This record gives sequence, structure tokens and C-alpha cells, in this order.
Amino acid sequence: MMSVLSPEELSARLRAVGEERYHHKHPFHVLMHEGRLTRGQLQAWALNRAYYQSKIPVKDALILARSGDPAFRRVWRKRVIDHDGGAGEPGGIEKWIRLAEATGLDRDRVIAGEEILPGVRFAVDAYLNLVAERSLLEAVASSLTEMFSRDLISLRLDKVRLHYPWLEKGLDYFTARLSQAPEDAGFALDWVTLHARTRDEQELAISALRAKCDILWAQLDAIYFAYVEPGWPPPGAFRIEEKSA
Amino acid sequence: MMSVLSPEELSARLRAVGEERYHHKHPFHVLMHEGRLTRGQLQAWALNRAYYQSKIPVKDALILARSGDPAFRRVWRKRVIDHDGGAGEPGGIEKWIRLAEATGLDRDRVIAGEEILPGVRFAVDAYLNLVAERSLLEAVASSLTEMFSRDLISLRLDKVRLHYPWLEKGLDYFTARLSQAPEDAGFALDWVTLHARTRDEQELAISALRAKCDILWAQLDAIYFAYVEPGWPPPGAFRIEEKSA
Repeated sequence: MMSVLSPEELSARLRAVGEERYHHKHPFHVLMHEGRLTRGQLQAWALNRAYYQSKIPVKDALILARSGDPAFRRVWRKRVIDHDGGAGEPGGIEKWIRLAEATGLDRDRVIAGEEILPGVRFAVDAYLNLVAERSLLEAVASSLTEMFSRDLISLRLDKVRLHYPWLEKGLDYFTARLSQAPEDAGFALDWVTLHARTRDEQELAISALRAKCDILWAQLDAIYFAYVEPGWPPPGAFRIEEKSA
Repeated sequence: MMSVLSPEELSARLRAVGEERYHHKHPFHVLMHEGRLTRGQLQAWALNRAYYQSKIPVKDALILARSGDPAFRRVWRKRVIDHDGGAGEPGGIEKWIRLAEATGLDRDRVIAGEEILPGVRFAVDAYLNLVAERSLLEAVASSLTEMFSRDLISLRLDKVRLHYPWLEKGLDYFTARLSQAPEDAGFALDWVTLHARTRDEQELAISALRAKCDILWAQLDAIYFAYVEPGWPPPGAFRIEEKSA
């Protein structure tokens, strides 16, 4: 039987998953940060990722619904509020729509979501299935990609301002996440550390984080394939207009 | 209100979906039929599609479980039997494994499925969700891609024998499907025609077939992207060995 990992060992294992699999290394992000994406490609990215954003509070509501602990739920509900917003207070979904608008897309087209790549849709839906069907421990552990998001977002903010200054007015989503994500990740990491009591449970948590990384990576794969190289969107999906190419 | 389509009109609408979205036109199949895939690329295809094959009888069992009609179930169970096989009688899953073996892959590696592309896994799981969550009518309609499979399989058999003669011994899956698929499709088309009584139901059936085409297409997209162009398998996925490239 494998021995239980210390909190430090568990944290190191989780960080190693991020180093290997988190989408900060994905070629689409590399191109983005090198300023080598066109406006049309950024539109495709914003439009497709809007589907992911739209499901985040649904994902968190599924997790809320699975916990029997009011104290846990009181903390976790912050995520639903952060993304859905409040009266006159735009949440993450609305901020993402504004980012998409800043790329030149029509808001209604983003919300309708009819042109989302099937590959993106399947990956996002796999995330909802993961949090609904695996254990609560795994559902919470899958959120730990937020341990890695701050560095990626900081880099992105710098690079977007440098290479795509016309997108500056759409960056509220990212500036908000700079503080929200580490706060959320800190709570989730403590919770996973406390509740993964056996080595088997620890391995399930690590595996859930790996699965979540796959979900993020697969979305960018689908976007890269359709809109960068070879550049073949499947039938029915968003197509880049000539003038945005 | 839109008027109900005649059986001929419904059939024509379904065939139009296939013409536009069925994966016979996917670039990966085009390369395959032109003899331009390497052995390693065919291994990647066989290994990944084995995951789809392994879930076909699960998908059909989900459909069986949703029908309250013994007569329907008596016909539909044939699909489970076709894919799972019988005593000493290899079914579709086993035949697919033999196809993968003919490409040079180890059987245990195919069955373990640890190197499946996440994009393929998410698309296949989306198929299971579709048949579990949408109406029985839509679940049955999603099987109608079999209306289009005979032509694709006939072409494939010719082209594989021509371009990849070393794969000849692995073709039992396809020769079996040549007769199974049209028989199954005939029953399903009649059933959908009979049970889609309103125009709304007919549109739901058409939409389910479109969704299924997206599921097939997305699998080949993931395979093409990882193993043809640009050729970047995600972290943890199957990698083509130098000698098979």
C-alpha cells in the first residue's frame, strides 16, 4: 500500500500536473502571447471560450448541490456570484462577453453560441459531467487549475496590452480573475488537503486535476486546429471573415 | 407553425445532413483513402477509435433501457450482440482490436485505452450523454449516421486493400458492418419516421443526427490535429514511434 503524502508532497504533485499539462504551454497561447494571432483568430477564441465561461457557474452550482456542509457552501457560492454577477454588477460571464465584443463580435452572436466548435462543447460538457459524477473530492480538486491561472493571466494582460492594444477595453475579466482565482484556489487546496485522507483519495484528486487540464487543453486544440493550422472549422462552426483574417 | 414533413421529405432532410456533415468528407479520411497515411498514423486512428467502438454496446444498452416496448428492444438488442459478440464469436469490439493489432499495436495497449486523446474521449462521452439525456426519438435518430456508412466502408475496403495491403487481415470489422449497418439503419429510419409525428419532433430528430455527425467529425479532428498536421498530441496521449512514422 502506498503511503499517504504529506500536505507538501501532495501540493508538489498537484503543481507537477500543472507544469506538465496546464494550458499555459499550449501552442495557441504561445502564439497569442507572441502577438501572432489575427483579430479573426482572437474572435474565434473569444467566441468559443464564451461557452466555457457560460458553464462555470453551472459547474459550481453542481458542486454546491453535492455538499452537505453549509460552511463549505457559504465559501463556494462566491464562485457562482463572481461569474453571474449581481444587480448592475457585471460578473465573469458578462465580462467575457465584453471581451468578445472588444474583438469585434456581436454580443447576440456570442450569447447564442450556435457557432461553437463541437470539440469545445464536448470538452466543456465533460467538465460538467466530471463534477456531477465523480466524488465531491474530485470535483473540488478539478478546480485546482486556478493554482496556475494567476501567472498565465498576468502574462496575458501584459502581452495583450503590448500586441493587441485595441483589445484593452475588454480586459476586465482577466483583471478580476487576478485576485479571485488565487483566493479560490487557496481554499480549494486546503479543502482537498484536509479531505483526501488516504493515498488512494490523494491519487484521485491528482487524477481529477489532470482530467481538468485535459479539458482546458482540448478546447485550445480544437480552436487551434479550426482557426490556425490547418485552419479547418468543421461544418456549421464559426468562420473567420476575410477582413478579420 | 411549420407543416409536418412527408416521409420522403424527412428522409431527404436527413440525407442532406449526412451530405453536409458526415465524416466521409473529413480530411483524415481523404488522406486515408488516397494512401497518404503512415502506419503510425493508422495506429493512432485505430487506437483512438477503439474507444468509440468500446462504447457502442454501452450506447445501445442505454437506448434499450429507455424503451418500454419489448418489440423495439428485441430488434435493438441485435446491436449489442453485434458489437459484444458471443461465445467464440468475435463481435465488433474484438474485430476492431484485431484491426488495431494489424497496424502493429499491442492488444493490451488498445484495451487499456490510457493513451486515447482527450478530444476523442470527450466526443464519445458526448454521444453517451446524448442517448441518455435527450428523448428516445433523438437517441434513435442519432444512430442514423448508419444510413451513410455503407458507401464509406465500401470505399475504405477498396482503398485499404490498394494502399495498405498489410492491413488486409484486420478488415473483418468493416466487412461485417457492410451488411449490419444498412439493416440497422433501415429499422431506425422507419422507426423515426413513424414516431416523429410533429414537425417539432422531426426537427429534433434532424438535429440529433447533426449532433452525431459532429461527434464523429470531432474525433477525426482530434486525431488529425495530433497526428497529421501540425502533429501535436497533447500531454499523455499516444505518440507515434519513429519507425512507424
